[in-house]
Amino acid sequence: MEFTIPWEHYVAKYRYKYSALYHAIREGILTGTLQSGRRLPATRELARQYGISRGSAATAYDMLLADGYIITEIGRGTYVAVVRIEEKQAVHPSSEVSLSTWGKRVLEQQRREEAGGLLTSSETGEIHIEDQIRFDKGEMPADDFPFAEWRKVAFSKMEDEDSAVTDPAGDVLLRAAIAGHLGLSRGIAVDPDLIVLFSGSMQGIALLTQILLNESEKAVIENPGYPGFLQAIRVNGGVPIFASVDEAGIIPEDWDASLLYVTPSRHFPTGAVLPLSRRQELLAWAHKRNAIIIEDSYDSDFRFRGRPIEPLKVLDSEDRVIYMGSFSKTMYPGFRLGYAVLPRGLLQAARAVKSFYDPFPPGLNEQRGLGEWMRRGGYAKHVRKLTRLYGSKLHVFVEAMETYTDDFFELHVGDAGIRVYAIWKQNREKYVQFMDKCKQNEVYFTDSAIYQMTEDHKPAVYFGYVHLTDERIREGARRMAAAWEEIRNR
Amino acid sequence: MEFTIPWEHYVAKYRYKYSALYHAIREGILTGTLQSGRRLPATRELARQYGISRGSAATAYDMLLADGYIITEIGRGTYVAVVRIEEKQAVHPSSEVSLSTWGKRVLEQQRREEAGGLLTSSETGEIHIEDQIRFDKGEMPADDFPFAEWRKVAFSKMEDEDSAVTDPAGDVLLRAAIAGHLGLSRGIAVDPDLIVLFSGSMQGIALLTQILLNESEKAVIENPGYPGFLQAIRVNGGVPIFASVDEAGIIPEDWDASLLYVTPSRHFPTGAVLPLSRRQELLAWAHKRNAIIIEDSYDSDFRFRGRPIEPLKVLDSEDRVIYMGSFSKTMYPGFRLGYAVLPRGLLQAARAVKSFYDPFPPGLNEQRGLGEWMRRGGYAKHVRKLTRLYGSKLHVFVEAMETYTDDFFELHVGDAGIRVYAIWKQNREKYVQFMDKCKQNEVYFTDSAIYQMTEDHKPAVYFGYVHLTDERIREGARRMAAAWEEIRNR
Repeated sequence: MEFTIPWEHYVAKYRYKYSALYHAIREGILTGTLQSGRRLPATRELARQYGISRGSAATAYDMLLADGYIITEIGRGTYVAVVRIEEKQAVHPSSEVSLSTWGKRVLEQQRREEAGGLLTSSETGEIHIEDQIRFDKGEMPADDFPFAEWRKVAFSKMEDEDSAVTDPAGDVLLRAAIAGHLGLSRGIAVDPDLIVLFSGSMQGIALLTQILLNESEKAVIENPGYPGFLQAIRVNGGVPIFASVDEAGIIPEDWDASLLYVTPSRHFPTGAVLPLSRRQELLAWAHKRNAIIIEDSYDSDFRFRGRPIEPLKVLDSEDRVIYMGSFSKTMYPGFRLGYAVLPRGLLQAARAVKSFYDPFPPGLNEQRGLGEWMRRGGYAKHVRKLTRLYGSKLHVFVEAMETYTDDFFELHVGDAGIRVYAIWKQNREKYVQFMDKCKQNEVYFTDSAIYQMTEDHKPAVYFGYVHLTDERIREGARRMAAAWEEIRNR
Repeated sequence: MEFTIPWEHYVAKYRYKYSALYHAIREGILTGTLQSGRRLPATRELARQYGISRGSAATAYDMLLADGYIITEIGRGTYVAVVRIEEKQAVHPSSEVSLSTWGKRVLEQQRREEAGGLLTSSETGEIHIEDQIRFDKGEMPADDFPFAEWRKVAFSKMEDEDSAVTDPAGDVLLRAAIAGHLGLSRGIAVDPDLIVLFSGSMQGIALLTQILLNESEKAVIENPGYPGFLQAIRVNGGVPIFASVDEAGIIPEDWDASLLYVTPSRHFPTGAVLPLSRRQELLAWAHKRNAIIIEDSYDSDFRFRGRPIEPLKVLDSEDRVIYMGSFSKTMYPGFRLGYAVLPRGLLQAARAVKSFYDPFPPGLNEQRGLGEWMRRGGYAKHVRKLTRLYGSKLHVFVEAMETYTDDFFELHVGDAGIRVYAIWKQNREKYVQFMDKCKQNEVYFTDSAIYQMTEDHKPAVYFGYVHLTDERIREGARRMAAAWEEIRNR
């Protein structure tokens, strides 16, 4: 008997195909279309019928299994279970939930991002076509992480019950290790007590903005810049001031504001390194305005050449700078940890806000594991190794791009980081045609429009390549060249 | 040469002794009192001199080591290192950081809690005296968790790079497993898409309150009740309405509010099970007021006898109830995971707020591990095993208390949970004397004053005992009896 549960309705409704399939089959079971005891197709067959990957089919089955809708018997197949629970329908669904002002803003902001495509293509939908080349990923591939070594050091202290661990600012030994690391790698002298750990840097940015910015107050953001801070401003009801950025980074001005978010070590997304003189101007501005500066060291872990310029935090003699860092570029997927080094005057409030949301730090075992790994020197060794690897990967990428895409892309190659910003040299119309053609050729990249705060910008692209082999990088560049060839004389 | 770095100043300043010692030694190094190359005492000796535990001494050394202030050579001892970095002093510390209204409230609330002793004694200071008997702990001891089994199942998928994992609501298979678990154990039919995972239930309570409650709006909280919700109301600028509680739980009224937080399955902290009729009254109130009810299934995982009454979520025909649960009572220390089953009308906003703070869920590997463990049946088996163990532990505790403390404590023994509430039968003056005497006798418990929202309450105590051996439980009860003997005729 052919398995013919319709799922078009669910495909339109759910973001992931496995989710659509899960709901389609569940609905079939609940409405009696698929009766108890009915045998279901094997995942391979299911994948073929619905044109999805086998992994997605298996995930849908796993979800149904966990729910108790189906049963699996080894060697005998998968069957519809005796369904235990009647699906309850809301008889009188409450007309409308009334959200708080804050709730409305967070929802509105989310909708705006989804509509405006603030999510990159790699974050939506499924990817299972073998021949795609995706330059739109910006994270270390899992293969580059030494899991065997990590497993030995992490989770080794899981059994401990230590009163020290209840510090909401995070594991005390990891904070000490981060302080040591910042001293060695950035020249920042840090008291570990001034460090608060967050579940990723976005949590830190969100919470710090919340304790600093009132409704209707202004905050300065780089343009182009990090959309997460724009989100934090808007969700809190604040008003963004868009600071201009040139090839050296943010251009200091006398903004009428008392909060600035800036990425001096490697501007997001252009990669520009802010010169010392501008750093000093930013601090002078902060002095004049009695302002706080959030300095985010985004994607500056892998440094290929050159000495870093002193962070604002080092130059800051008035204790106005929050220095933020993260481990999401150097650890494995799913590891989320950010930190902030705080001015002493902000410490109590920052601890209070973290403690309010997460009275016990989540991911504590990973925190302890990382602290121990740093203490033993394993983390530094891992970063050094990847720096060599990604340095040579960058070389391959730049060479390929210069060979094949020099007519239409101007690369901004920085001294550090795993992504490269490129400005489109041709006109906007050609850019749109080029993007379409690249999609046909199955080569993808991040349109940096999502990092532009205003409309009046040149087309630009943000490339990630560390997850690709050298050959795939070159092949990707060749496909872009081919796309350009097809449209250049239109 | 005797090691005589003064630390009194630091003891007053820092919460933990290891932290005080760390700062004292660091200051000594930075000021030159302890010079480079100077040998430091062994941890055993350091512990003796400062009257602290050896573990604390070792932690202080670990922190100094991580910072690079000291070096350790195996077999040769610990020495002051050549200090790399000059400690920077803020030359002109910024006069005052101006916090947002929200920031001021979160800070004020934190200070209020610290002043009012909302932290239980087990959460402050260090515990290293062997003869203390502590009934003031409310968590499963780490020894009761099957780490060997857990290690096999958890972290097994760490290498996966799966696009599905970026769902900010948390791992999809764990959400499916929770839905299945709620169906079986509570009779709630749940669509896994309606579940959002949080880093502990407090994060869920904080975020949901934030999207529902405006400044100056009212919200209802049980009295006595969960201080976390009071904190969430106040931090968001809301106004609490204190609902009365009797031996059956919350007493329904026509509160002028549109948000209620309630613990019907096991009232926090008294353990009362709310009767069906009152549950229906709460839902009728929600209908009339167009309100949302947060139903927290706090500490109802271990059920010793009786059938649970239908959760509000099951009775709720209008989709007004948020059902919350947590794994912090059944997993190991450091594992923090809570979840909410949401009304459909709230789902988008709840996903948006979680996504704002934690765009990638932290602790993802633990989430996946738990999902897999639940799917394999290991989690249910673990909970069943502990239910038997804690059922017999409860029996020992109740028997000991009835034997020794019946003159002054009236126990409220519930059908589930790992803590027992007890009302003081004597007058308040005697209670104060009794508390003092118990401290002298080194038997500790949680004064439930921290759960009382108003001043006019009878003295009561909240006991935790699952981490103690049967013999220590009896010894604790005997010490309380001895304390009572000493003060009864004063």
